[in-house]
Amino acid sequence: MRTKTPKESYTISTDIVLPNDTNVLGNLMGGRLLHWMDITAAIAAHRHCKRVVVTASVNHVSFDRAIKLGDYVTIEAQVSRAFTTSMEVFIEVFVENSMTGEKMKSNDAAYVFVAVDQLGRPIEVPQIAPETDIEKQRYDTALRRKQLSLLLSGKLKPGDAPELKELFLGK
Amino acid sequence: MRTKTPKESYTISTDIVLPNDTNVLGNLMGGRLLHWMDITAAIAAHRHCKRVVVTASVNHVSFDRAIKLGDYVTIEAQVSRAFTTSMEVFIEVFVENSMTGEKMKSNDAAYVFVAVDQLGRPIEVPQIAPETDIEKQRYDTALRRKQLSLLLSGKLKPGDAPELKELFLGK
Amino acid sequence: MRTKTPKESYTISTDIVLPNDTNVLGNLMGGRLLHWMDITAAIAAHRHCKRVVVTASVNHVSFDRAIKLGDYVTIEAQVSRAFTTSMEVFIEVFVENSMTGEKMKSNDAAYVFVAVDQLGRPIEVPQIAPETDIEKQRYDTALRRKQLSLLLSGKLKPGDAPELKELFLGK
Amino acid sequence: MRTKTPKESYTISTDIVLPNDTNVLGNLMGGRLLHWMDITAAIAAHRHCKRVVVTASVNHVSFDRAIKLGDYVTIEAQVSRAFTTSMEVFIEVFVENSMTGEKMKSNDAAYVFVAVDQLGRPIEVPQIAPETDIEKQRYDTALRRKQLSLLLSGKLKPGDAPELKELFLGK
Amino acid sequence: MRTKTPKESYTISTDIVLPNDTNVLGNLMGGRLLHWMDITAAIAAHRHCKRVVVTASVNHVSFDRAIKLGDYVTIEAQVSRAFTTSMEVFIEVFVENSMTGEKMKSNDAAYVFVAVDQLGRPIEVPQIAPETDIEKQRYDTALRRKQLSLLLSGKLKPGDAPELKELFLGK
Amino acid sequence: MRTKTPKESYTISTDIVLPNDTNVLGNLMGGRLLHWMDITAAIAAHRHCKRVVVTASVNHVSFDRAIKLGDYVTIEAQVSRAFTTSMEVFIEVFVENSMTGEKMKSNDAAYVFVAVDQLGRPIEVPQIAPETDIEKQRYDTALRRKQLSLLLSGKLKPGDAPELKELFLGK
Repeated sequence: MRTKTPKESYTISTDIVLPNDTNVLGNLMGGRLLHWMDITAAIAAHRHCKRVVVTASVNHVSFDRAIKLGDYVTIEAQVSRAFTTSMEVFIEVFVENSMTGEKMKSNDAAYVFVAVDQLGRPIEVPQIAPETDIEKQRYDTALRRKQLSLLLSGKLKPGDAPELKELFLGK
Repeated sequence: MRTKTPKESYTISTDIVLPNDTNVLGNLMGGRLLHWMDITAAIAAHRHCKRVVVTASVNHVSFDRAIKLGDYVTIEAQVSRAFTTSMEVFIEVFVENSMTGEKMKSNDAAYVFVAVDQLGRPIEVPQIAPETDIEKQRYDTALRRKQLSLLLSGKLKPGDAPELKELFLGK
Repeated sequence: MRTKTPKESYTISTDIVLPNDTNVLGNLMGGRLLHWMDITAAIAAHRHCKRVVVTASVNHVSFDRAIKLGDYVTIEAQVSRAFTTSMEVFIEVFVENSMTGEKMKSNDAAYVFVAVDQLGRPIEVPQIAPETDIEKQRYDTALRRKQLSLLLSGKLKPGDAPELKELFLGK
Repeated sequence: MRTKTPKESYTISTDIVLPNDTNVLGNLMGGRLLHWMDITAAIAAHRHCKRVVVTASVNHVSFDRAIKLGDYVTIEAQVSRAFTTSMEVFIEVFVENSMTGEKMKSNDAAYVFVAVDQLGRPIEVPQIAPETDIEKQRYDTALRRKQLSLLLSGKLKPGDAPELKELFLGK
Repeated sequence: MRTKTPKESYTISTDIVLPNDTNVLGNLMGGRLLHWMDITAAIAAHRHCKRVVVTASVNHVSFDRAIKLGDYVTIEAQVSRAFTTSMEVFIEVFVENSMTGEKMKSNDAAYVFVAVDQLGRPIEVPQIAPETDIEKQRYDTALRRKQLSLLLSGKLKPGDAPELKELFLGK
Repeated sequence: MRTKTPKESYTISTDIVLPNDTNVLGNLMGGRLLHWMDITAAIAAHRHCKRVVVTASVNHVSFDRAIKLGDYVTIEAQVSRAFTTSMEVFIEVFVENSMTGEKMKSNDAAYVFVAVDQLGRPIEVPQIAPETDIEKQRYDTALRRKQLSLLLSGKLKPGDAPELKELFLGK
């Protein structure tokens, strides 16, 4: 199975914030953005493995900037690291200033997808070879995010997460 | 500002999985569930503080069980802990077996909301007094989730998260 | 087939009124609420009989109170009476005052569902044993609503509806 | 205020049953049809009075025939009778056989709308002069439906509904 | 295969412009209207041939008049000409003035549909016999629109379109 | 007003074909694709002029290839030519083979948008300087498409369209 680059799964999608996507303050609701990110990220994961993919987990997502009705939202996603049957997809969200066209980063997130066969059973995926500095950094930190994720869901004990332990011990 | 119990914000919502909510395997897409959870959790946060609330962050969510077309999905949410202007809402998702009616837990999640005034500025919220054992446990672990969340978004350094450090040092 | 209580089918759902649910005055459109009530009531009917259920009829529904954009609408439903293959589901709609949290009843309705097999043919459902006073009252009046319904759709002649006749004769 | 004919408010709408409109048997869900009927009927009520209209009540609706995925559904509506500020709209639903084009009646319903001003207060509407036999019959029976409706919602006592009493006494 | 009249495929649909159908100026977005026209036109094409129909092309559509939030939009469609396996459907869009009820034409369009069998292969359709003057004119100009369409998509050379050539040569 | 390149307005969007986007053969309905193209093209037009844009017309669109349920559809759009207050946006639609990832062109289209102020009045837009061969070709043929469009909508006489006349006279 050929190793692939993050660029090969790069996916971009642009949407307009419509009335039904907003709350009473006229801001994009978080749930709608979580949904949009899932769709774009799923396409990126599919482009990496050419298989049906299902969302396995969402790691930390923060919403730091209000996105307004009528704003243009661009979501960019690419696979940051592959494990045996799962892939972490790194997602960035940008909003354009409608007067100047300036593109500001709104937030980022990491979703994990699993490749499955027609019966829904996990199947192996190609590995990732990061190319740029930022891709390498995301590749390295993906393991830490995975351990945190397993820790948070009670599937891993702190003692079995050496990368995390090291982080907190300051070594 | 009167301290409240988690029960006072308890919110429940039940939905049927329709065709447009599913992927090509006929399973509920993760993004749709993230969206549904956000709506139910926002109502719980609102019930706690009686203010407009906006999604601030999503901590770890994992999808462990495939939910099928036609399944009945019940989402239960209640505020687990309040900070100055933010509230962690703990969410549980259940799916009913359509033959036996047996209710199985599908997954859980913790979303954080901020209460805002009409200009979108954060405002203070009532504190939480947990009553049951499970409410107390969620209250205690909410701080750890908050530190992990800040750590993951680069807003906190490992040395400033003593509760986490202790977790990994095994003390 | 075991007789069941109304409580066993009790279903609750909470939704936010979004822009697309409203008319030009910013009020929830009746048709959307009729749709939401049907979904919640169908889940209650399913919980009673564990079968595929289809809407058979809607008896009187009145809309007495304007529900506004951004309001939280809670729909509660439970089976009020079972006949051979059909079930009446009694539905209550509540709206929360967003400042005080006070829950006001907006309206109620009775929908009838039929349980069907995979070919769409009606099949028998469990009977209902009402427990509380209000459940007993709904159980008793369900027969009258059924006769009115058959009368209105031309499937019953006035002379064959003794409960109704008695009602009008004042005996 | 000029009296109008039912024909002046006649409204017709045709839709295709899409996947998300159907249940697990592939049949149109009742709630969706209730929603479609409300939209078409609201347009008819508006055409009669040229005012903002809001749904006031739904009298009996029965669903006698399964409508399938991909079917073409035609909804026809016209005002059948006007009272002071309210209008009864009579609605008929037809489904086309996709092979022969034969149009079969699926069901009918009567919705009541109220005309309101910009503050939501009821305002007077033009009266109706029925022309055809069927229009005259619907005009005559509208009063009986109104009394039944008020009776069912507890706003009228049986003794105050002479038309209904007569119906049951067989005079 | 019996020749049919345009009237036999006549289809009408009426919709209300809801918030999610509008742009930031509160006007109906072109894309939504293109979508609505496709649905109504597809039903007309189906009524003509009683087969599954798929959109083959859209000829010129212009949007000359802003349609506002809350407006009632009526779309009328009928088959204007049939070729071997394809049908041109002529569509007219009207908007009602909400105060006077005056119906103003907003725009028109011509969509082409192909009848297909269950494998998606084109199949023959009945021919059209126009009856009124306007139907005859649309029938005659449909051929010119077809040639322009083929020309624009590069499937026809100018020399093979005698009707168009004549148009420009002024003969 | 600075002249811009087509690249500056380049917009890309990727969507998954969901059940509600398809007809009974499981193929993407033309109307849905017309809607998606309008949204992506509107964003491209906005990026060119930084103003509110409204769809003015759609020139020829043909649908040559069935797009299936679950397919990934990529829509690419950029301004091909600017006139005084209007812009032609050229749109290309691609579908990915889900096994090989091969990207096949499905169809193309040209939509025209007008820039408007807050009162909906047309305002001037920047001109376009095409850079690549394909951009130059689209720039040149845009005028011909505009004349055909005006001709088709009856706003131009054949004699006033010299570029078209020349095309048919073979000079």
